[in-house]
Amino acid sequence: MSTTKKIVREWLSGNREGGIAFLKQLVQVPSTQGNEAKVQQIVAEKLFRLGLNVDIWELDGEQLKKHPYFFSSRETFEGSPNVVGVLKGSGGGRSIVLNGHVDVVPEGDVRQWNHDPYSGEVIDGKMFGRGVTDMKGGNVSLLLAIEALQSLNIKLKGDVIFHSVVEEESGGAGTLAAILRGYTADAAIIPEPTNLKIFPKQQGSKWFRLNVKGRAAHGGTRYHGVSAIEKSIVVLNQIEKLEKIRNERIDDPLYSQIPIPIPINIGKIEGGDWPSSVADVVKLEGRIGIAPNERIEDAQNELEKWVERLADIDPWFKESPVELEWFGARWLPGAIELDHPLMDALSKNYEDVCDKKPIVEASPWGTDGGLLTQVGSTPSIVFGPGVTNLAHFPNEYIHLDSIFQAAEIIALTLIDWCGDATDDAEEESE
Amino acid sequence: MSTTKKIVREWLSGNREGGIAFLKQLVQVPSTQGNEAKVQQIVAEKLFRLGLNVDIWELDGEQLKKHPYFFSSRETFEGSPNVVGVLKGSGGGRSIVLNGHVDVVPEGDVRQWNHDPYSGEVIDGKMFGRGVTDMKGGNVSLLLAIEALQSLNIKLKGDVIFHSVVEEESGGAGTLAAILRGYTADAAIIPEPTNLKIFPKQQGSKWFRLNVKGRAAHGGTRYHGVSAIEKSIVVLNQIEKLEKIRNERIDDPLYSQIPIPIPINIGKIEGGDWPSSVADVVKLEGRIGIAPNERIEDAQNELEKWVERLADIDPWFKESPVELEWFGARWLPGAIELDHPLMDALSKNYEDVCDKKPIVEASPWGTDGGLLTQVGSTPSIVFGPGVTNLAHFPNEYIHLDSIFQAAEIIALTLIDWCGDATDDAEEESE
Repeated sequence: MSTTKKIVREWLSGNREGGIAFLKQLVQVPSTQGNEAKVQQIVAEKLFRLGLNVDIWELDGEQLKKHPYFFSSRETFEGSPNVVGVLKGSGGGRSIVLNGHVDVVPEGDVRQWNHDPYSGEVIDGKMFGRGVTDMKGGNVSLLLAIEALQSLNIKLKGDVIFHSVVEEESGGAGTLAAILRGYTADAAIIPEPTNLKIFPKQQGSKWFRLNVKGRAAHGGTRYHGVSAIEKSIVVLNQIEKLEKIRNERIDDPLYSQIPIPIPINIGKIEGGDWPSSVADVVKLEGRIGIAPNERIEDAQNELEKWVERLADIDPWFKESPVELEWFGARWLPGAIELDHPLMDALSKNYEDVCDKKPIVEASPWGTDGGLLTQVGSTPSIVFGPGVTNLAHFPNEYIHLDSIFQAAEIIALTLIDWCGDATDDAEEESE
Repeated sequence: MSTTKKIVREWLSGNREGGIAFLKQLVQVPSTQGNEAKVQQIVAEKLFRLGLNVDIWELDGEQLKKHPYFFSSRETFEGSPNVVGVLKGSGGGRSIVLNGHVDVVPEGDVRQWNHDPYSGEVIDGKMFGRGVTDMKGGNVSLLLAIEALQSLNIKLKGDVIFHSVVEEESGGAGTLAAILRGYTADAAIIPEPTNLKIFPKQQGSKWFRLNVKGRAAHGGTRYHGVSAIEKSIVVLNQIEKLEKIRNERIDDPLYSQIPIPIPINIGKIEGGDWPSSVADVVKLEGRIGIAPNERIEDAQNELEKWVERLADIDPWFKESPVELEWFGARWLPGAIELDHPLMDALSKNYEDVCDKKPIVEASPWGTDGGLLTQVGSTPSIVFGPGVTNLAHFPNEYIHLDSIFQAAEIIALTLIDWCGDATDDAEEESE
């Protein structure tokens, strides 16, 4: 083990309690959409203490709205500032973006949680809480990596640009704003929850709404109406069929272990306004996954055609066509070459730290990596300590050990990727 | 045709425009639950001008809550007064309740209406609007019948008690309050929309809520979750099966023309809170129809057992049982003997006015007649001018002619049932 690797590991080991306490502090702030200001303040103070140049700004809805890849349910972003911290390199090295979002999805049905979703309780080496895995734990890995380098006085050649963004869960407006403000780099790491797997490809996704119509009637003579709830069952079954067709096409070996590589998920249903009336309209809201190599417009087109075809399945839909709306969020798919030098550096350091080869897979969900790659020309790898299948779940948790493993791997990767200015300084002095 | 019959018909014919204008005035007030004060004011003024003793009062939630058959989503009834008008008879006759509700169900999806739901537009002898058929048109028939008798100076022996009640659409708290205030009689007519058919039996109904649970996950890894929306489809299919079983039992010939005598209607669905999350809970709200001869408790028991049995259909429900809640509204079933003297009087006058035998059927929905019969000891017939299968529909309308036919039949029935005091007065003077 090189001296640098040894001292980084020792530093992380010596600062374990502080790292855990900081994560707990982040988790205890319920930073759902629109409520990120407080958590961003904590992050900004941390970056300031680490000696980075800190930029805090509120997203400019007017400017963002003009961008073709802007999507958000909001037009103003009060209460949701972005934070970026820049660690300037000495020059001559490759720059890197470290990107993490602080917004979390709502906690859902609290009765399904065994703990207060915002307590950050630690049990048997795991911390529980909404957002701990997606992705405040990953953000802490990034901050620990930077803190280790700073504390150990390891100087880099290239710049490290830390993005603490909002709005990832609803379309990426935070990362888009950071890109438009100029915070791009030669490559990026995004520590979304991958179980420490390396995801060079990321699924995109797009939100949609289906308005299924019925014809109202009194529930006591329901045979005179047409239930939009019953018709929704037909629609749901057909959407599942389309999902099957789209997934049978995926032959990328990176997806070989994923049961449904690009899912279509209907996450919300709402319809009818009176228990004893026949429901006249039901609204379904969902997301369609976009393959890394697929154009988002092609996937949209396929769903549109499929919805039109419902009229062949049930004549009711000829009379009352299902309306398809695209709304809100959209995540661009993204990919980095498998032999990209950042892939090499990350894989090598994973192997050094974990004593085994990393698992390389495709991401089962969209991330802000699509925007960084396609809009910011910053090819991105998703790699983080969180538990993939707990994202958006009740009883979300993270293994604390993973956070420190990720921090170590990322710290060492920063040295390899950005270049160690300490070496040069030493060489110069020799 | 007797003189009385002739002059009643002539009076109605001469007052057609006024009757239509009054109905329009009622329809133009959107008297949905909680918003009935304005329409009640109009009715009260009408009753006052007709010379009735008028009682307007706000329902006493505290008192009602103590009654075993009280059901409402509300505990206070601000903005929803009841109105009763009493036309005292000269004595010695049978009394009658004429009961109509002024609350209307919400208009639903306005795009499905060809006209403003609260315009009261008249086209080709039909008036359109929310509540025109269910049941403001019927209320106008009652008021025209009373007005005809008053204008023609036809005195009755028995009392006529006109109920203009609230809360019929959500459980009958208005009629219950009228009963508890002492406004009962020897029998009742309720002009709910029956297409001028006579309904001596009324279906009861009870509202319920089913909470279907899933397990949340990120939509991109939806295979790690269990969709409460998918599980709701299983529940909906099973509810339809129970409906089939319950209806196969109905052998009452009065139901022979009804496709589903006692429907179970799921009128509302709502679940999930994020398009790209797997829904962790879906709420279904509906009503179960109760046969006229069935105890409401037995029907509830059957549904409860059925919901418990879901665990045999899908093992998921063993792990996460569907919760059944009884809430809000409940309409008691009711029945009057087919040979009751009010049935005779109404049938005879129908035949006289319409020149054909009336159609006698069972009501496909619950009415306040259950409360009047079971709590108020006032056996009730449902008979009214509205169009049965338009109740709760968009583009609800009523045939204006029917309103005047119903008014004529009811006016003549009042004379037969309550007794003509004018006859006695003439006899005495002879």
